Amino acid sequence: MDVVIIGSGNVAHHLALALTKINQPALQIFARNERDLKAIAQAAAIPYSTFELKKADLYLICVSDRSIQAASEWITDPDALVAHTSGSMPMESLKGPYRKACFYPLQTFSKKKELDFKSIPIFLECEFNKDYEALTSLAKALSNSVESADYEKRKYIHLTAVFACNFVNHLYARAKEISDSQNLSFDYFRPLMEETLEKTRYLDPKQAQTGPAVRNDTRVLQLHEAILQTPQQRKLYQTLNESIEEMYRPKKD
Amino acid sequence: MDVVIIGSGNVAHHLALALTKINQPALQIFARNERDLKAIAQAAAIPYSTFELKKADLYLICVSDRSIQAASEWITDPDALVAHTSGSMPMESLKGPYRKACFYPLQTFSKKKELDFKSIPIFLECEFNKDYEALTSLAKALSNSVESADYEKRKYIHLTAVFACNFVNHLYARAKEISDSQNLSFDYFRPLMEETLEKTRYLDPKQAQTGPAVRNDTRVLQLHEAILQTPQQRKLYQTLNESIEEMYRPKKD
Repeated sequence: MDVVIIGSGNVAHHLALALTKINQPALQIFARNERDLKAIAQAAAIPYSTFELKKADLYLICVSDRSIQAASEWITDPDALVAHTSGSMPMESLKGPYRKACFYPLQTFSKKKELDFKSIPIFLECEFNKDYEALTSLAKALSNSVESADYEKRKYIHLTAVFACNFVNHLYARAKEISDSQNLSFDYFRPLMEETLEKTRYLDPKQAQTGPAVRNDTRVLQLHEAILQTPQQRKLYQTLNESIEEMYRPKKD
Repeated sequence: MDVVIIGSGNVAHHLALALTKINQPALQIFARNERDLKAIAQAAAIPYSTFELKKADLYLICVSDRSIQAASEWITDPDALVAHTSGSMPMESLKGPYRKACFYPLQTFSKKKELDFKSIPIFLECEFNKDYEALTSLAKALSNSVESADYEKRKYIHLTAVFACNFVNHLYARAKEISDSQNLSFDYFRPLMEETLEKTRYLDPKQAQTGPAVRNDTRVLQLHEAILQTPQQRKLYQTLNESIEEMYRPKKD
């Protein structure tokens, strides 16, 4: 299966590297931003172009949600299979005369950080049933975890990921803002962050909750509010504590 | 150094096990709740009592903040060193004729989950300088990371820990609430959660932020708000996004 990758961002980067790694290098990587494109093409040892799209069996569109439609219009081959890689766009956002699909790898991608694609769940959707076989086979060569997921399901997967990843990272950033303000090494908190994650393997996170809010420790909550340094930190602190309290409050039948 | 542990909660449990593991078993574990106490005493192979406190060099008070004072009053030996283990109480919450200290292990403790105490930072404070040597030596036998920290510093350590651990765990719980509602296995999100943590080793979490809020993706933010299922989830979602936006907004000089 000849694959062309469209895009020059984090997803394009990691997908291009992963395909080369499993000895199924992309036929080409195509995008408008030559600088980033060239770097990926070199790293993955594949050709690139900013103006001439090669003919391929599968086009993987790895661009931001708002650019998917424009990128999808570059492809005019009716025999092609075209997949975007977004968790929050319907398959129908692809506009062209070809067979449509979605190939959604669930991970947070940063160019600077290598990834083991094998552990990344890939969620597939195909307009035509006949395309599942080839797309699944490619996905299974890349990852140990391949499932089908339509747009409805993808939306919830993405939403869950925002809580478990984007929001968690933001709390790490706010935590570091506080520890930095006191010249405390953020490394002190690493075993705690690791254990917090590790615990979820053994305990439902709802059962594993610790801290002042879940034990209704008003004194500590007030003490923390008094030393928080910005209104934004304080609002975040209060809303998270409220949400913890709500989760453990006895529910009416 | 003869050590008596006071308490029968998670900290008492893990500290008792850790002392036994380094072949410096506690002389006794003492508390009012016999059931939990007995279980810890058996696991750590040490004697326990609910009514007669043994004479010791060091008493480690491992009880909730609100019980520290009452527990500290059980000790009447003027030759003892008495330390509580709380991040959010001053040393002066100990009431008795002895030398006071604080021995604060920074970790989230659950009885059901084994811990490697070696990696847990321990923060010490002593009323008298002469006590640092013995307390540091005990702490260093338990952990590779021992530092001194007064009440002011401990408060900020604890506050940072609430963001990096308690709040993060709550986001895991809210994420699981959403994935459960769609019968999505929470295991799909594990590689993402691991990578989110792993990334902080290579990138400042502020630089590593991904997701709709940091890229100002109004369409996805609205899409998520529309499918969130409870007012509490929605409020949490909005506040976290606001806080992300605030962190990356250009600041006025």
